[in-house]
Amino acid sequence: MSLNPQYEEIGKGFVQQYYALFDDPANRASVVNFYSATESFMTFEGHQIQGAPKILEKVQSLSFQKITRVITAVDSQPTFDGGVIINVLGRLKCDDDPPHAFSQVFTLKANANSFFVAHDIFRLNIHDTA
Amino acid sequence: MSLNPQYEEIGKGFVQQYYALFDDPANRASVVNFYSATESFMTFEGHQIQGAPKILEKVQSLSFQKITRVITAVDSQPTFDGGVIINVLGRLKCDDDPPHAFSQVFTLKANANSFFVAHDIFRLNIHDTA
Repeated sequence: MSLNPQYEEIGKGFVQQYYALFDDPANRASVVNFYSATESFMTFEGHQIQGAPKILEKVQSLSFQKITRVITAVDSQPTFDGGVIINVLGRLKCDDDPPHAFSQVFTLKANANSFFVAHDIFRLNIHDTA
Repeated sequence: MSLNPQYEEIGKGFVQQYYALFDDPANRASVVNFYSATESFMTFEGHQIQGAPKILEKVQSLSFQKITRVITAVDSQPTFDGGVIINVLGRLKCDDDPPHAFSQVFTLKANANSFFVAHDIFRLNIHDTA
């Protein structure tokens, strides 16, 4: 396996596809399909969990409904095992809350003809995470 | 190779060590020793470069002198090849500039008895990267 020259398109495409599902309460739970049953790590606001079942539980525990999101930066790099590392910055607004800045890092790992999310690190309110 | 159970300490230790050098203009250039001559990727404010010589050039081109930095979050995860992925959020102040929020992702890759930075993605002014 080696560097995937399409890392930029893969990163941007993934981000678009992921948030289209996540931001819609009717489809949010289906993001679980991006994760591995046992391997994937998610750190959500500093709490680390591992594996799709726990990630699904976390996603389903989120109480907000609709999310309106503005992506301000997507920086992708290819990894030497054929994957992609993606750093996303932006702002999101849950229901009638005020907007929050967020940071999310994804690592996509190549697996046969597709990718799964091996690592996901999310932080909200990055303005004032003091 | 497998998950390194010390990933949390490695992440926090690296961040401390890296910024202690980077933030001191007399030692800034020595961060180049954390990178691989050919493999390491750096994306600095959206511009991607590869390999220690270009990274050194970039670091040496930075015009600010002293940096005062406040780290607000360090989230680390172990990778299945024995490395660590680290997401850092915080604020920094260059010389007499106003403070800026920043985001930096590092991927440390295990190499014999140490680590090198395989991936580095940096963004300043994440409040308003619109």
